[in-house]
Amino acid sequence: MVSMLRVCLVLYLTLVVGIFADNATPPPIKKVTAKPTEAPKTTTTSPSPSPTTTPVASNGNETIGNASLSNTTQVNTTVTSTTLATTSTTKAMVAPLPAKGAAEEEHHSSMTIFFVLSVIALCVLIIHVLLKFNFTYLPESIAIVIVGTILGGILKLFSSYGIGNWQSEEAFDPTMFFLILLPPIIFESGYNLHKGNFFQNFGSILVFAVIGTFISAMIIGGGVYLLGLAQVAYKLSLVESFAFGSLISAVDPVATLAIFHALDVDPVLYMLVFGESVLNDAVSIVLTTTVLELASPSASAMSGAEAFFSTVWRFCSMFVASAVIGTAFGLVSAMLLKFVDLRKTPSLEFGLMLVFSYLPYGLAEGLKLSGIMAILFAGIVMSHYTHLNLSPVTQITTQQTFRTVAFMAETCVFAYLGLAISSYSHIVKPSFVIWSIVLCLVGRACNIFPLSFVMNYFREHKITRKNQFIMWFSGLRGAIAFALSLHLEFTSEVRHVLLTTTLIIVLFTLMVLGGATLPLLKLLKAEKRKKTKPGRELNLSKTKEMGDTIDTDHLSELTDMEDEVNYVKPHLKGFMKIDAKYLVPFLTRRLTKEELRDGTNQMKTLTNQWYQEVRAVPSEDEEDEEMQNLTAQEIR
Amino acid sequence: MVSMLRVCLVLYLTLVVGIFADNATPPPIKKVTAKPTEAPKTTTTSPSPSPTTTPVASNGNETIGNASLSNTTQVNTTVTSTTLATTSTTKAMVAPLPAKGAAEEEHHSSMTIFFVLSVIALCVLIIHVLLKFNFTYLPESIAIVIVGTILGGILKLFSSYGIGNWQSEEAFDPTMFFLILLPPIIFESGYNLHKGNFFQNFGSILVFAVIGTFISAMIIGGGVYLLGLAQVAYKLSLVESFAFGSLISAVDPVATLAIFHALDVDPVLYMLVFGESVLNDAVSIVLTTTVLELASPSASAMSGAEAFFSTVWRFCSMFVASAVIGTAFGLVSAMLLKFVDLRKTPSLEFGLMLVFSYLPYGLAEGLKLSGIMAILFAGIVMSHYTHLNLSPVTQITTQQTFRTVAFMAETCVFAYLGLAISSYSHIVKPSFVIWSIVLCLVGRACNIFPLSFVMNYFREHKITRKNQFIMWFSGLRGAIAFALSLHLEFTSEVRHVLLTTTLIIVLFTLMVLGGATLPLLKLLKAEKRKKTKPGRELNLSKTKEMGDTIDTDHLSELTDMEDEVNYVKPHLKGFMKIDAKYLVPFLTRRLTKEELRDGTNQMKTLTNQWYQEVRAVPSEDEEDEEMQNLTAQEIR
Repeated sequence: MVSMLRVCLVLYLTLVVGIFADNATPPPIKKVTAKPTEAPKTTTTSPSPSPTTTPVASNGNETIGNASLSNTTQVNTTVTSTTLATTSTTKAMVAPLPAKGAAEEEHHSSMTIFFVLSVIALCVLIIHVLLKFNFTYLPESIAIVIVGTILGGILKLFSSYGIGNWQSEEAFDPTMFFLILLPPIIFESGYNLHKGNFFQNFGSILVFAVIGTFISAMIIGGGVYLLGLAQVAYKLSLVESFAFGSLISAVDPVATLAIFHALDVDPVLYMLVFGESVLNDAVSIVLTTTVLELASPSASAMSGAEAFFSTVWRFCSMFVASAVIGTAFGLVSAMLLKFVDLRKTPSLEFGLMLVFSYLPYGLAEGLKLSGIMAILFAGIVMSHYTHLNLSPVTQITTQQTFRTVAFMAETCVFAYLGLAISSYSHIVKPSFVIWSIVLCLVGRACNIFPLSFVMNYFREHKITRKNQFIMWFSGLRGAIAFALSLHLEFTSEVRHVLLTTTLIIVLFTLMVLGGATLPLLKLLKAEKRKKTKPGRELNLSKTKEMGDTIDTDHLSELTDMEDEVNYVKPHLKGFMKIDAKYLVPFLTRRLTKEELRDGTNQMKTLTNQWYQEVRAVPSEDEEDEEMQNLTAQEIR
Repeated sequence: MVSMLRVCLVLYLTLVVGIFADNATPPPIKKVTAKPTEAPKTTTTSPSPSPTTTPVASNGNETIGNASLSNTTQVNTTVTSTTLATTSTTKAMVAPLPAKGAAEEEHHSSMTIFFVLSVIALCVLIIHVLLKFNFTYLPESIAIVIVGTILGGILKLFSSYGIGNWQSEEAFDPTMFFLILLPPIIFESGYNLHKGNFFQNFGSILVFAVIGTFISAMIIGGGVYLLGLAQVAYKLSLVESFAFGSLISAVDPVATLAIFHALDVDPVLYMLVFGESVLNDAVSIVLTTTVLELASPSASAMSGAEAFFSTVWRFCSMFVASAVIGTAFGLVSAMLLKFVDLRKTPSLEFGLMLVFSYLPYGLAEGLKLSGIMAILFAGIVMSHYTHLNLSPVTQITTQQTFRTVAFMAETCVFAYLGLAISSYSHIVKPSFVIWSIVLCLVGRACNIFPLSFVMNYFREHKITRKNQFIMWFSGLRGAIAFALSLHLEFTSEVRHVLLTTTLIIVLFTLMVLGGATLPLLKLLKAEKRKKTKPGRELNLSKTKEMGDTIDTDHLSELTDMEDEVNYVKPHLKGFMKIDAKYLVPFLTRRLTKEELRDGTNQMKTLTNQWYQEVRAVPSEDEEDEEMQNLTAQEIR
């Protein structure tokens, strides 16, 4: 028996011998006693001037013999234990063992997740109540921010009485925001985007997003700097001013979507605001990073013109590369699901969809491009091509899951904005805050009105005065700006001032401008748009909209199209024509009759299954009996 | 204009004044220049003997003025920045700003996610190929481990030639495993569990899981210790031996499920092995932590008997409390979805399901109980009650999503096991490894055979000799043991030895025992079970099983029941009776006829939508036309 085992073992070891062999010799061992109190001392004695500039560089150290150094608790497992690594570098390229205290950390993270999920559950119920009592004048996003604020206050109260300590649970973590919360929101908006409108207005959107945001950043950054010099407001350095101007210039897609989505606004207006808000994020990120780089000593040798062109070049390459990555992943997913028939294994099919919905974001962010742009384009391409290659079950699952996850992520974002009021320490500079808000409004005015004026020369569908006004008014700032402000690397006081100011501007635009959007629209509508359908009321709830349109989503898209520029029916032009003639046939699958029948039957079986399981009202009358028979017949 | 804004601002500030007020005064600012190279020095000078035993304690420090300390890159944002906090504690209860370098860390994490998702996509395709060519003799789990091994080797090769550095991407992170990968796997298995069989065999499962695991741990721990003393194998201290014995004794649910799920084994056998593997995880965790605690100086005053009773007491309370938490959350979700009608807003409905599927895990782990037990019970309760309160769309979405996420998590786990071979540095002690494997087999034999013998006195459905043999044989160790071994806090050499040994045992049981399970079953079956249905072949693919049974899952459960002890039809007994008579009516909703019709119509509309969108083969013959008309009629 033992010999057989040995043989097996040797065989397996041979398989991986190349990997094992060079590690099999025990490295020099330094016995470090693992008592936690000794850890800091050990840190002090360690000679490590470990290179800290690039994160990859410090990974080369082997941590055999010094794992106990990382004993200072709350150190996140894999990653951090290398940072304090001493000089016993026997081999590179090997991952360190997790730091001690990792198990403890785990319990803490569990509690954080529990907290977040509880907040989401609470918000779900509150939204349900809002919907049920038709309390449509309070947008969901604002309701959730208020919930977050109140919750933050309560936790603060608890903490001050010593009941629990929640400050790490309630803190808004920008990494979590960018990696977990933002991608599903943007992907979902791309997936359910009205593609026709988006691409028809692509030129205008681009102009607003790029030139407009640049104008706004210049005005806010310059304004803040000059006001600081003039001693009117808090004094910031040139770099700090423009970094702040850049990050606060981007209109936020999350906030804007939440307010606009369900409004019965002019679809072109919606598309302009939405498109701008998605694309200008990239602009804002590039501007902010560029400003910060210009401040670094290595870049100060550059002349102004050089800096300008480098910024422009960076933006263009970032924009194009991100879009290409997103589009490429979308196309690959369509091809894969066309030729690899996964419809018999829905788990694999849906799994592939989930993977492909995040892949472009991961790659683009990893390459320091704009993940948000990549995922937007991936969403658009996937809904246009890949969606058609899915089995009906996976179609439903995909759509529902993306929607739900996006909804949950949005809820999180707004709740965290509310919580941020009490979870960070703030330095309020009233004059700075007020002037910043004024500059934001002025900057946005200088973006929208002149550019609209110019673009109306080229547009068929002019941007009316009223729409311009709404566009100006709806310049909501949101979580992206706030997350960027958390990432600024200035001195502590400046960080806190900018953080606080950004948070106040975000909340102000969300509460005041966002809250006033519905009344404003009503006012404008009363004068102008009479042709709104009588049955459809204004409705600020995106969630309800989701429920209502669950079964008519793609259909409604068609009817919307007919309302407008009807490019579908008589003559397709440009890209649309190529798309319908070549791309769609190339990228989507042609189903045989059998496959169609399979799909339909599968759905029927599922329906029947539900029907059978569910507890119905006892069948007193015949009608019910009859219906049951009917369903049973249909299935056979 | 400005005055209006000021008014709004003041109003809002008043709202949150209690929170802002005490933070408005700027804290004493210590200007620390943010040059990265200075960071280690600063760490050295910091006097912080920050208490490292409890992670919460060190959170009270405010990091204003010292955020640059955490500048050592790769530090995970929110959590870690407190650990290096200096003594400038001006205010407690406030979250620190993210450490600098957080934005950099984000790009790195993105790349990690991209890497993981790419691996999953690759595995999906490989599994598809395996299924397509009906290559059923290689279990999917083993295939994926091999993929992981090969991938690890390739990355190693790349790294050694200096092409990229992947060691943090490919490292198995136990925190990620316990927080993200394990919960969906266990929840899904609970959700799709054959509840009748599970509860009928609950007594036996409990005995195997608790007493059996305890026996096994004692034998392995004692054996390893004695062999060490006798200089036969690597020498471990008493604590280290028993810690190792405890963590390696737990049979792994993930590995076992992956191998067993689709096998057409005796359902009772399946349930015994599965049930044991889920519950003994809790036992193993409690044993391991208890052993480690006994080693700490504070506990050494306890006598042997005290320690024993404290262990027993801890286990019982942990077991009961975890199960109660899981059950409670399940029941709450059922009640919520019964009384709160979310069927018009599927996003909210599905969101609530997602939240409730994770909440019990978060709470149980946060309270240092067994999250895995809590989530198992929540899954069981939710599939039994909550599932019936869902709209058909959400039912489908829920089931598909849970399955897919569980599948993806499993894929990750196995891929990481393969990658772990090359991502950690190993110290192989051949004699220790071989003796450990022998002791594992002996320990499991001492668990299964005597306990089965005893229990057969009490069981109606006896455990046959053959089933006992299969149970012994199928004691696969898996990722839980490996993750626990990563969390051990011994000296570095011992850690590496135990890590390596655990990994080899895991791979050995998975590859050799797991791989031999199918031939073994065939051998045994050829002799004995003739009554297997002719149409159904042995199939090691869980994924294919998923696809096949997608529409008959809950129905098949009923038919299975009839096969066996048929407690459903003639007379329900015990809990089953109470359940059917009181609990189900209490916890599930009675649908009105209208609601039934709505549900059916919703599904029809969705089917139709798919039918309309999809590109069908051009309708040449009439049959197709006919079918289209038929479908159209049905929908009207």
